[in-house]
Amino acid sequence: MSKIKFFLLLPLMLLLLLPSSIFAATPGSELASVLEVQQYNRAIHIMAMLLIGFGFLMVFVKKYGRSALTATFLLVSVSLPLYFFIHSLEIFNEAKGEIELLILAEFAAASLLIAAGAVLGRLKMFQYIILGLLFIPFYMLNEWVIVENGLDLLKGAVADTGGSIVIHAYGALFGLAVAMSMTKRKDLEKPIEADATSDRYSLLGSMVLWVFWPSFCAALVPVEAIPHTVVNVFLALSGSTLITYISSISLRGKINAADIANAALAGGVAIGSTCDHASHSGAMLIGVIAGAVSTFGFARIQSKQQRAFRAVDTCGVTNLHGIPGIIGGLAAIVVVEGLNVSSQISAIFITIVSALIFGFLSGKIISIFGHRNEAYEDAEEFEDAEE
Amino acid sequence: MSKIKFFLLLPLMLLLLLPSSIFAATPGSELASVLEVQQYNRAIHIMAMLLIGFGFLMVFVKKYGRSALTATFLLVSVSLPLYFFIHSLEIFNEAKGEIELLILAEFAAASLLIAAGAVLGRLKMFQYIILGLLFIPFYMLNEWVIVENGLDLLKGAVADTGGSIVIHAYGALFGLAVAMSMTKRKDLEKPIEADATSDRYSLLGSMVLWVFWPSFCAALVPVEAIPHTVVNVFLALSGSTLITYISSISLRGKINAADIANAALAGGVAIGSTCDHASHSGAMLIGVIAGAVSTFGFARIQSKQQRAFRAVDTCGVTNLHGIPGIIGGLAAIVVVEGLNVSSQISAIFITIVSALIFGFLSGKIISIFGHRNEAYEDAEEFEDAEE
Amino acid sequence: MSKIKFFLLLPLMLLLLLPSSIFAATPGSELASVLEVQQYNRAIHIMAMLLIGFGFLMVFVKKYGRSALTATFLLVSVSLPLYFFIHSLEIFNEAKGEIELLILAEFAAASLLIAAGAVLGRLKMFQYIILGLLFIPFYMLNEWVIVENGLDLLKGAVADTGGSIVIHAYGALFGLAVAMSMTKRKDLEKPIEADATSDRYSLLGSMVLWVFWPSFCAALVPVEAIPHTVVNVFLALSGSTLITYISSISLRGKINAADIANAALAGGVAIGSTCDHASHSGAMLIGVIAGAVSTFGFARIQSKQQRAFRAVDTCGVTNLHGIPGIIGGLAAIVVVEGLNVSSQISAIFITIVSALIFGFLSGKIISIFGHRNEAYEDAEEFEDAEE
Repeated sequence: MSKIKFFLLLPLMLLLLLPSSIFAATPGSELASVLEVQQYNRAIHIMAMLLIGFGFLMVFVKKYGRSALTATFLLVSVSLPLYFFIHSLEIFNEAKGEIELLILAEFAAASLLIAAGAVLGRLKMFQYIILGLLFIPFYMLNEWVIVENGLDLLKGAVADTGGSIVIHAYGALFGLAVAMSMTKRKDLEKPIEADATSDRYSLLGSMVLWVFWPSFCAALVPVEAIPHTVVNVFLALSGSTLITYISSISLRGKINAADIANAALAGGVAIGSTCDHASHSGAMLIGVIAGAVSTFGFARIQSKQQRAFRAVDTCGVTNLHGIPGIIGGLAAIVVVEGLNVSSQISAIFITIVSALIFGFLSGKIISIFGHRNEAYEDAEEFEDAEE
Repeated sequence: MSKIKFFLLLPLMLLLLLPSSIFAATPGSELASVLEVQQYNRAIHIMAMLLIGFGFLMVFVKKYGRSALTATFLLVSVSLPLYFFIHSLEIFNEAKGEIELLILAEFAAASLLIAAGAVLGRLKMFQYIILGLLFIPFYMLNEWVIVENGLDLLKGAVADTGGSIVIHAYGALFGLAVAMSMTKRKDLEKPIEADATSDRYSLLGSMVLWVFWPSFCAALVPVEAIPHTVVNVFLALSGSTLITYISSISLRGKINAADIANAALAGGVAIGSTCDHASHSGAMLIGVIAGAVSTFGFARIQSKQQRAFRAVDTCGVTNLHGIPGIIGGLAAIVVVEGLNVSSQISAIFITIVSALIFGFLSGKIISIFGHRNEAYEDAEEFEDAEE
Repeated sequence: MSKIKFFLLLPLMLLLLLPSSIFAATPGSELASVLEVQQYNRAIHIMAMLLIGFGFLMVFVKKYGRSALTATFLLVSVSLPLYFFIHSLEIFNEAKGEIELLILAEFAAASLLIAAGAVLGRLKMFQYIILGLLFIPFYMLNEWVIVENGLDLLKGAVADTGGSIVIHAYGALFGLAVAMSMTKRKDLEKPIEADATSDRYSLLGSMVLWVFWPSFCAALVPVEAIPHTVVNVFLALSGSTLITYISSISLRGKINAADIANAALAGGVAIGSTCDHASHSGAMLIGVIAGAVSTFGFARIQSKQQRAFRAVDTCGVTNLHGIPGIIGGLAAIVVVEGLNVSSQISAIFITIVSALIFGFLSGKIISIFGHRNEAYEDAEEFEDAEE
């Protein structure tokens, strides 16, 4: 217990040192304030995606719902202050507006929740917090290298407005690497079970993500480009949703509820890099491709991948965020005019490699703090959760 | 299966032909952009109503939750691109801003979801898609005739800002006609069962609809009229909610959860036509009347209607959207100053007739693709859905 | 029944007398309209908190979910028109913009829902409406005395932007007093039971509250202060969420799902009074303190409090809204520069006393209309709710 408390109180303590001057002054004109309030509105939508969206999407594990939701609460609550704190050290970034910084912190939290999805049900509750404490600095390092070209590795700007690469692919591969470094034989054998109620909760999470996804992609887009971006995201999601149904029934004979809840979102993942550049038909096509590949992944690759990597990816984040994220990053090469192709490919490559390395390392560190007795069971850590 | 794929791939293929020039250029000034972003915000609220609201409202059928939610996903995903595609043909409408067009497409999707509610549980999954492919063009035809006076049948503008007539009544009567054309004897006998969990999901959907309804009605209202409209919608909903409780307990002796989840929304349906014109007390009165009539419909008419029309209206859309929609359209005659009464009545009449004719026709076409073995059961089409 | 109808129809009838001139004219400039539409947007977020947030938070009582949600619907539907009606009498307040008035009415509804949480499951459905009819005028009296200094009792402005005192503490203590005046011995013995599904619903409500809380606190804040306020609220919530987990496991040995769903929100309650004044680290610290105290309340005081006051506080509103609300009000003394300390303390004192007196009185009045046979059971009032 004392060990737990130490790791939990640490971020709280750090925060109390949070200087109040980390944020750039709010812009002077009233119209500028109006624009920032519109941004805050998108920040609220993203928060709905983080807690209700990702949270309930993970409730498909039928006996682990309270834990999945509590873990979501904790992961978000660690991410926001920690991101602010590290930002305030001015190692990586310059001062930004408060809402812009909030949105960047939410992006980090989204990526962390994706990573956590890979090991969902196999960490003790306080280990999720340790995961968050490790993930956020590593994420910020990659964000700095790719988005701000902090190490001067890239020759041109990377197209990744909605984070296909730095948010989705990074989080998924980080999570996969954590899973690879700590999956036990026992975990490979234990089935992950859903039921009617957990499936309906999961579809709720999926719908919340679908609905607010345009605000995620358009969060930091200039005001005049928002309408086109928003329509693109909805078209990409429509494309992936339709193809997911077709693919699910074609590949399995029957519809699989988890395919629908997950792969339907692949269009949102993949349109991230090009949401403000693609034409509407291009956006829909990207959604269709991502949805098809993602469903194929869930239906045909998931179980093989498990054996090949000796890693259980509980929520299938590799197939929802990993592959579609990379597809999205590559799509920019075709879609975005004047893009520096080598920069884009380098960005994808750096993201994959750093996610795998730091993820594996993080998994080893987390393993030091032990393993659960029973995976996927609320009862191990929650009161009155036997039924 | 090949038949299914054809019908599903069709809309996807069409979309890839979507020209990128269908939208009017975004307005130049920054303030104009700010207004369009405020509109997009309402578009997100409407999307929450479509997926989470309508979706979960339909989860009251206890063994059909996964199907209801998947159908909702598919119906929305067909509607948006198909609406955009047909609009791009420039048969019906002129170019509009991207967000305005998105909102019009969402209105169409709302009407389609209402129609689908009438036959919920008795279509195979791919038949919902066929329903969508048939419904959207018919809906756009009626929208063009009523809202744009496309055939020059009306002598004056119709009052229907929030779509009591063209969205709610049209969708409900279309759905009723589909049900009439394809209800089997077996369907008339099979009970539609709810339980505590499905009722709570249904109330969740109802609440999501209630909360965001003002954004639906005010979606395309000029900025200065939005506050009055928003308050009107909440007062109409408050009125229908209170009277629904009184009516439910008066008519049945006990409260009926489905009455609350459904008839509480009748005020939102009925205030649609006059949301920007009614006084606050007028709005509340319209809500009270609509709620009372709707609850009476659920408690006393629903079962008789079933026998009379030989049609099972699964979600009771006739009583929630049909009758209250017509009440709302008629209320405009009293409320809206300077309204051309004959136009308003003609609009209602045209909507009813075209909904019934095209709905019946659509039902016959859908029937060609067969019937479910077991109504209202996920297990027929979903993996691992036996329990 | 006739008695019920009288009490229910009364507010409806009053409303029909609602003059249309109660609202101040909408401001003339387009930018002013844009600001009011941004306010309406926050009003929608608050409505999501009222219905979905508070509603589902109360669904943790496993056999009383339909009732909790129906009661939420009714309490909101009584509050809005009644607040508008009393406002229109011009006893307490001057004319305000429509959306500002809507937000104030929503604040009143929030306070009422908190009060109702204390007696949840022990009122008949129509008694919730009577509770609403009594609560709203008493609440408005306190609001007038504290916020508008209506009786000229205070020497300076009170810091309570987000309502720690007038909304949260008032509602909680009013509810506690209602409970004290009408709790039966039988109620003290009957356990309040949750299960996996009701816990997950409750966490859904909690998350909806968490996500939209910044819009609650920033609802009436000037546009340029919104970003700082929003970040403060999220930091306070992050602080209370982290400390709730630590405290829950420290005090109980295992995690308690109700602690997470409730005490995680204590930061939002406590930051209310100082949300626009606190530094970010100050906001987080307030959240940590409130979360720790709240969890301690749930884990250690709740059951003793029950015996001491002979009152069952079903949802633990004393520990979620009462104590943290008072902590928040007191925090302003440290945080807000130039605050008139005696005014702030008087405001807290007046709020506590008037809530207790009027709450006790209201409980006595409500008791006249009888008692439920079985607490916490849908089946007593709902059709088909036996299972």
